[in-house]
Amino acid sequence: MPVDLSYAPDVADIVEKTSRFVRDQILPIEYQYGGDITTAGGDDIRREMNAKAKAEGIFAPHAPVEFGGLGLNMSDRTPVFAAAGYSTFGPVALHIGAPDEGNVHMLAHIASDEQKHRYLAPLAAGDVRSAFAMTEPSPGAGADPDALRTMAVKVDGGWKINGEKRFITGADGAGFFIIMARTAGSPGDRGGATMFLAPADTPGISVDRHIVTTDRSMIGGHCEVSFTDVFVPDEDILGEVDEGYRYAQVRLGPARMTHVMRWYGSAQRCHDVAVDYVSKREGFGGKLGDLGMIQQMVADNEIDLAASMALLVKACYELDQGNHASNETSIAKTFAAEAYTRIADRSIQMCGGLGVSEDLPLSRLQNELRPFRIYDGPSEVHRWAIARRAVGRAKKAAARAESAR
Amino acid sequence: MPVDLSYAPDVADIVEKTSRFVRDQILPIEYQYGGDITTAGGDDIRREMNAKAKAEGIFAPHAPVEFGGLGLNMSDRTPVFAAAGYSTFGPVALHIGAPDEGNVHMLAHIASDEQKHRYLAPLAAGDVRSAFAMTEPSPGAGADPDALRTMAVKVDGGWKINGEKRFITGADGAGFFIIMARTAGSPGDRGGATMFLAPADTPGISVDRHIVTTDRSMIGGHCEVSFTDVFVPDEDILGEVDEGYRYAQVRLGPARMTHVMRWYGSAQRCHDVAVDYVSKREGFGGKLGDLGMIQQMVADNEIDLAASMALLVKACYELDQGNHASNETSIAKTFAAEAYTRIADRSIQMCGGLGVSEDLPLSRLQNELRPFRIYDGPSEVHRWAIARRAVGRAKKAAARAESAR
Amino acid sequence: MPVDLSYAPDVADIVEKTSRFVRDQILPIEYQYGGDITTAGGDDIRREMNAKAKAEGIFAPHAPVEFGGLGLNMSDRTPVFAAAGYSTFGPVALHIGAPDEGNVHMLAHIASDEQKHRYLAPLAAGDVRSAFAMTEPSPGAGADPDALRTMAVKVDGGWKINGEKRFITGADGAGFFIIMARTAGSPGDRGGATMFLAPADTPGISVDRHIVTTDRSMIGGHCEVSFTDVFVPDEDILGEVDEGYRYAQVRLGPARMTHVMRWYGSAQRCHDVAVDYVSKREGFGGKLGDLGMIQQMVADNEIDLAASMALLVKACYELDQGNHASNETSIAKTFAAEAYTRIADRSIQMCGGLGVSEDLPLSRLQNELRPFRIYDGPSEVHRWAIARRAVGRAKKAAARAESAR
Amino acid sequence: MPVDLSYAPDVADIVEKTSRFVRDQILPIEYQYGGDITTAGGDDIRREMNAKAKAEGIFAPHAPVEFGGLGLNMSDRTPVFAAAGYSTFGPVALHIGAPDEGNVHMLAHIASDEQKHRYLAPLAAGDVRSAFAMTEPSPGAGADPDALRTMAVKVDGGWKINGEKRFITGADGAGFFIIMARTAGSPGDRGGATMFLAPADTPGISVDRHIVTTDRSMIGGHCEVSFTDVFVPDEDILGEVDEGYRYAQVRLGPARMTHVMRWYGSAQRCHDVAVDYVSKREGFGGKLGDLGMIQQMVADNEIDLAASMALLVKACYELDQGNHASNETSIAKTFAAEAYTRIADRSIQMCGGLGVSEDLPLSRLQNELRPFRIYDGPSEVHRWAIARRAVGRAKKAAARAESAR
Repeated sequence: MPVDLSYAPDVADIVEKTSRFVRDQILPIEYQYGGDITTAGGDDIRREMNAKAKAEGIFAPHAPVEFGGLGLNMSDRTPVFAAAGYSTFGPVALHIGAPDEGNVHMLAHIASDEQKHRYLAPLAAGDVRSAFAMTEPSPGAGADPDALRTMAVKVDGGWKINGEKRFITGADGAGFFIIMARTAGSPGDRGGATMFLAPADTPGISVDRHIVTTDRSMIGGHCEVSFTDVFVPDEDILGEVDEGYRYAQVRLGPARMTHVMRWYGSAQRCHDVAVDYVSKREGFGGKLGDLGMIQQMVADNEIDLAASMALLVKACYELDQGNHASNETSIAKTFAAEAYTRIADRSIQMCGGLGVSEDLPLSRLQNELRPFRIYDGPSEVHRWAIARRAVGRAKKAAARAESAR
Repeated sequence: MPVDLSYAPDVADIVEKTSRFVRDQILPIEYQYGGDITTAGGDDIRREMNAKAKAEGIFAPHAPVEFGGLGLNMSDRTPVFAAAGYSTFGPVALHIGAPDEGNVHMLAHIASDEQKHRYLAPLAAGDVRSAFAMTEPSPGAGADPDALRTMAVKVDGGWKINGEKRFITGADGAGFFIIMARTAGSPGDRGGATMFLAPADTPGISVDRHIVTTDRSMIGGHCEVSFTDVFVPDEDILGEVDEGYRYAQVRLGPARMTHVMRWYGSAQRCHDVAVDYVSKREGFGGKLGDLGMIQQMVADNEIDLAASMALLVKACYELDQGNHASNETSIAKTFAAEAYTRIADRSIQMCGGLGVSEDLPLSRLQNELRPFRIYDGPSEVHRWAIARRAVGRAKKAAARAESAR
Repeated sequence: MPVDLSYAPDVADIVEKTSRFVRDQILPIEYQYGGDITTAGGDDIRREMNAKAKAEGIFAPHAPVEFGGLGLNMSDRTPVFAAAGYSTFGPVALHIGAPDEGNVHMLAHIASDEQKHRYLAPLAAGDVRSAFAMTEPSPGAGADPDALRTMAVKVDGGWKINGEKRFITGADGAGFFIIMARTAGSPGDRGGATMFLAPADTPGISVDRHIVTTDRSMIGGHCEVSFTDVFVPDEDILGEVDEGYRYAQVRLGPARMTHVMRWYGSAQRCHDVAVDYVSKREGFGGKLGDLGMIQQMVADNEIDLAASMALLVKACYELDQGNHASNETSIAKTFAAEAYTRIADRSIQMCGGLGVSEDLPLSRLQNELRPFRIYDGPSEVHRWAIARRAVGRAKKAAARAESAR
Repeated sequence: MPVDLSYAPDVADIVEKTSRFVRDQILPIEYQYGGDITTAGGDDIRREMNAKAKAEGIFAPHAPVEFGGLGLNMSDRTPVFAAAGYSTFGPVALHIGAPDEGNVHMLAHIASDEQKHRYLAPLAAGDVRSAFAMTEPSPGAGADPDALRTMAVKVDGGWKINGEKRFITGADGAGFFIIMARTAGSPGDRGGATMFLAPADTPGISVDRHIVTTDRSMIGGHCEVSFTDVFVPDEDILGEVDEGYRYAQVRLGPARMTHVMRWYGSAQRCHDVAVDYVSKREGFGGKLGDLGMIQQMVADNEIDLAASMALLVKACYELDQGNHASNETSIAKTFAAEAYTRIADRSIQMCGGLGVSEDLPLSRLQNELRPFRIYDGPSEVHRWAIARRAVGRAKKAAARAESAR
């Protein structure tokens, strides 16, 4: 039972296939459309790419086997998702992009059999997309979940939901929504929240506006959504009433890590583009890649990639053991998100004027990577949580020492 | 004769007018067109904005008075250009953007009376734009000027120029070019270079392609330009033959500093937007701006702005004393360019999801600011030059100490 | 009235003399005693060095001329103090070390003629040393002045003081104390504080313990001091009752800046030692100083030195104009203190194994410089103050905009 | 065969015992002597502590079982060494300090049975100490091994060695030396080097001087050693002639990692001291540990610790697989060494004035940790090696792509 960091041969095979698939079939599409999934056709290009991935046997590697996926655990997803993330279109192709990937994960854990049949099955198969409606405009739930203002009130046979949501990824064109609404307490306290499943054509659901951000590879965008007297029958409650925050944790830890996996691929690609450039480009009497200040940037990229991956492996191991791993996932997310923008930035710098041009994909990838320091909890919120736990442990230890006297 | 860091009342008045002008008349235009000068109409919007600036009495503050400018020295340009740079369209409006501003500066110092009449006068008045054609595609002159490959050979009554240039700002639509070409030695050695003045319609000058970069506020873009048997008569040599590198220094130091001035304004604006946001936005039981980690970002922005300005003031003072100030301008440029992207990055982070969206100008401004760590000499080249001087001084001091024994 | 950053010839002359004096007469003493002023003889070596400085005409450059000093303002002190600080014993030699320098400054501004005669005159002449007793052990006044717990109660003909102080620099062997004690309100509120002058042999004053810190060049150490029923007559109140916080500001801004000046010299020395080393040491086929990663460290040191100096010049200019300059001095202090430890750290790194050895003074100087990020207000407290002002301005601007509607 | 990051129960038991042992039995000794092993009695205190460790059954956890150790592989050493390193005296107590630990490792892999009997057995038992004599004074072998100048020439029955060594850890009082000397080629080329075993009392071996460094916990110091006509018989060649560089690799990778393990403990201790402090200390209306800027430092320490450990685990796994793992060990060493000094620095900052005082062990620990960024290859040399490999891979890939056309 020694430390083991190897992957089983069948996993290594999926990784290898995914890498080849992305380079040969997906990168050309991404380049053709300048990395903008909307320009590339949105759901049309998604279905086309999904079909290619199915043909390669690498579609939905995270989904349960009974729903057509490969059933990989978090550890095994790691190298596969990273390989897919080498193209910003790769996660869409394998159907492992946000928010569908996290929603599949959560539904597989929490949904009833009937709900799995109606919602998970078509989602896992890529027949529909989904949205996770939690974040709200100020002063509602954002980094601080206790501010939740969307209300669900009990009515005959179900619930009636009213509220506004913001930054709802994939909302435009989604087949159904998972709606987080307050069912106990009031904004500012924890109270109770519940998750509701609702088909997108449920009366009262309105996708109002796209918030245009620097990332351009998530289908359905980041939207403002409003719920006006949306009726959800009792059988479409996901799990139990008032347990929404707990379920959110089931989703958030893994979803954070799959973000880290996917964007690892993009960071690796930035690095590869830059190292290729400096290994060829002449200047100052030799190759740029042989100059000390360039070597420093190359090495720092390598270190940042290695540390991101090592923290990711650790966090996924803990998740696979059935632990919440809130600290491990916060640490991995915070480090990696910051490392990835450093990597993109250094890669741009190494390529000089071309680095900031469209002749290379670097500045575009930087614009894809930058939001990750904000999405899924800004670095500041994760640091706050990490510190609170550390200081809390110290306070408890001091109290124990005090009482032992 | 004590240290004095104040500005004369007439300069303070120009600063005040410029600030008001930019906020009231230019920012609305910039916002309207999403910061893209091409979309905004290119030279049409430029002429319109120039007219407004003339009406305010703040047009061409750097140009000699005899050519219609305000004749400010480098120190006095500092707060004026920074005020103009608060909008990325501001420098175009005041006609102090790259490369025209630097070309006016250089022509005022080096051009013959006849050349001033033909080239400087219309340029200073904003009747035409200009381009400075020095940088070349690999393996030509980039960060390393000795690699210059564009050749000028003596012919009867003038010179014939052949070569390729790259990243020639403002080339598309320029009225004339200042061309740097090799007139002695061969690529890889210093040899001699000469500057030539050539109207844009001179046969053999071709603007071949725009290199699309993340910055979108310079009219005429960053272009690839080729020269095929371009004939320049002797009287259009700028200054003396083989003295081009020396003249480039006349241009480069000040041009570096005016970049620092203009982009200071954009960095200040990022900071203002973010501080305004966190001073209003609620979260975690108060205003975001009262949280320690946010305060750290606010303070670091303030420190970065203050240090950038202090180094700029120092370098401009040295330039106004008639010194080359290569070290001071390298230091100010390197520090400020890095500080500005840090400021933009922190400002984005403070605004959360909105920071990476088009709802705020921050990510757009970051894309304007990022190239400055590459343009006008990458940070690495400036650090190399700074270190070479320091180590050189130490070697000389050691040699002196040795010979004194 | 243009920007002027030059120094008058007489100031330049003092700088030149100071540099020569430190290198020829003080550095040898510092090296002889390994930088430890106590080992070197404490007040004995101080008097010996003071006599040398008087002989050179550079003693007490900051003290008023009528008290035997050179009467330099803050701007002119800058290069002189930096030259003195090149040796950690230099400020003691010129009698411009903490806390005497700041106490001279404050007494010159606030003391009555009688107090000047009794306290300032012997202090300015170096006949006695002094201590400034403000900081207290937790939970008293530290970074947060409102926590002041030392109490002074009115008694017949004077005041009776009780309390404990901590980190009182120079207390051991001081001729007199300036004691900050609460005369209104209670710990936790601002209330009122008063400054009292008390000869060291006043009954009830006890220097209890040295707190041994990493810096070793301040005579009299950093001490714990207790006051037990210390009687101070009314005539020894410094200034007015309850005005102590205001007077502390008179002292703190300038004292902060003279710290920045003195330690600038030590940072410059670290850099000089390292650049000398790498300009001579062979490795990897050339001099270390010609390697890119070393050049990066050399350049970053140069940039950090230049920015520290530029911010210092700005803050001193504001102080000389009679402004509080709280923001400018906080910014200069915070930046410089952090820059100096970066400089020391890079200098060590450049020198490899020797860098962490006693064969070079670098690790010793790092231990002198490190506390400056804590002394005179930790960086965090300054950042908090800087941010509060910035956010406060934004709130006011928003309120104005609101009320203008 | 999934990813597994757990430790076997017997290993966990050793970790637990080691932690308890260090806290209960070793920390008090370390504190008593201010962390200076020489003051504490050098080999006397070592033998005393070794006896205690033997009594606990945790002595020499890395040594082969047949030589009295616990026979742990690199992965299992990791948590044990980290637990020992919580005190700077802990590695001496468990006999796992540099250079003995690395020498045991190397002898176990390379020595002949006879050599194991004569050198390894007493070393593993703690009866003697040893030294590894490789590094030389400038211009000899330092960061650049090709500069090796110590020469061994073949004589009858053995070899005669002449040369000078520097920074030879543990030399003073060592029982025997492992000497690296050139047996082929000349300084500046790779040539061939050979390792020789020599008892310390061999004629011609002289320990000339201690280089006093900021770290104070390695017995026998860091010495200058000279070899004058030192005769080593053929049977005391370690391994094969001219294979010394290869053997050095056997030692260097693991030795690098055990440094990372041991100093991890010291970094963890800095963090623990600081978190304990801020969790108790009042200020600004609450506990310091609840302030945002303090939380940021706490969280950054946690992240740095986690990333260091994760990279260490990865590198040790690769070493245990029998791989050279040069890249993995360079990455882990470089990241961790820099992380540890950041952690020490933040911990000091969190504790304010006490942080730079002897009242807390932090500044002392910082002085222990700082040299690690230089020892075992400066960060710059590791970055150079990491970058060279990355650029080399890119060049090869480009060449393959070229030849495939």
